[in-house]
Amino acid sequence: MKLGRLNHIGVATPSIADSIKHYRDTMGATHIHEPFDLEEQGVKVCFVDTPTDSGMNGTQIELIEPLGEKSTIRGFLEKNPLGGQHHVCFEVPDIAEARAEFEEMGKRILGPTRIGAHGTPIFFVHPKDMQGMLTEIMETPREGAHWSN
Amino acid sequence: MKLGRLNHIGVATPSIADSIKHYRDTMGATHIHEPFDLEEQGVKVCFVDTPTDSGMNGTQIELIEPLGEKSTIRGFLEKNPLGGQHHVCFEVPDIAEARAEFEEMGKRILGPTRIGAHGTPIFFVHPKDMQGMLTEIMETPREGAHWSN
Repeated sequence: MKLGRLNHIGVATPSIADSIKHYRDTMGATHIHEPFDLEEQGVKVCFVDTPTDSGMNGTQIELIEPLGEKSTIRGFLEKNPLGGQHHVCFEVPDIAEARAEFEEMGKRILGPTRIGAHGTPIFFVHPKDMQGMLTEIMETPREGAHWSN
Repeated sequence: MKLGRLNHIGVATPSIADSIKHYRDTMGATHIHEPFDLEEQGVKVCFVDTPTDSGMNGTQIELIEPLGEKSTIRGFLEKNPLGGQHHVCFEVPDIAEARAEFEEMGKRILGPTRIGAHGTPIFFVHPKDMQGMLTEIMETPREGAHWSN
């Protein structure tokens, strides 16, 4: 595969409401999206846009807060009560092709390919096979739908 | 302040040589810079470029490997032997102004403002005051020097 856009960094937080204040008031973020629930993954999600030289289309910060008792990020927050960097997400043009390549390399993929926070198919690769970083691979949104979330 | 570019994410690794193989062979990175020593900070550094829609000017991955016995990232690697996400770095137009603002907000700044891996002034803010994320603030390189490292 060819390295795609770093779509977002996933940042776990005990409170999206508090994190929105932090990114708005401390960091000066100007483009903070509406939070929404991603029930399938047990998280509440909120995207914060960052700029590039040409607009607000930089790598996003994906704030994630536990949703429900079985949320996959509860364990992370028990170890890191303030929150912190949880995963990274790179784009690929074709999710099935990328999955086949990772499988061929013997990387452990966590669960099935499913629909992620940007509404396109995603899968996660085990941090132990990815230099200690939980890595999300997501199919690039089609033209025009890029920043819908 | 106003949120600037997410210049890079800092990724600690026990071996930049191994990480270069990972980003080249597994992730398909095409623009990997020459590693260099940043003695003042006790790290060996290597930047990996990521694309945006318009070029290879996306958020970089800054691989950092301990340099010397007193390297500040030895403790991190003891807790995370495979490596992992270590810090995030946002750009600001004026480092002195940004430092004054963070000080005024009561954020704990770690040490003096110094020259960072891109050759511009930087400082670090304590993760406990930044939602669990060690945060580097760096002055944007001047036009034309953007991607010299």
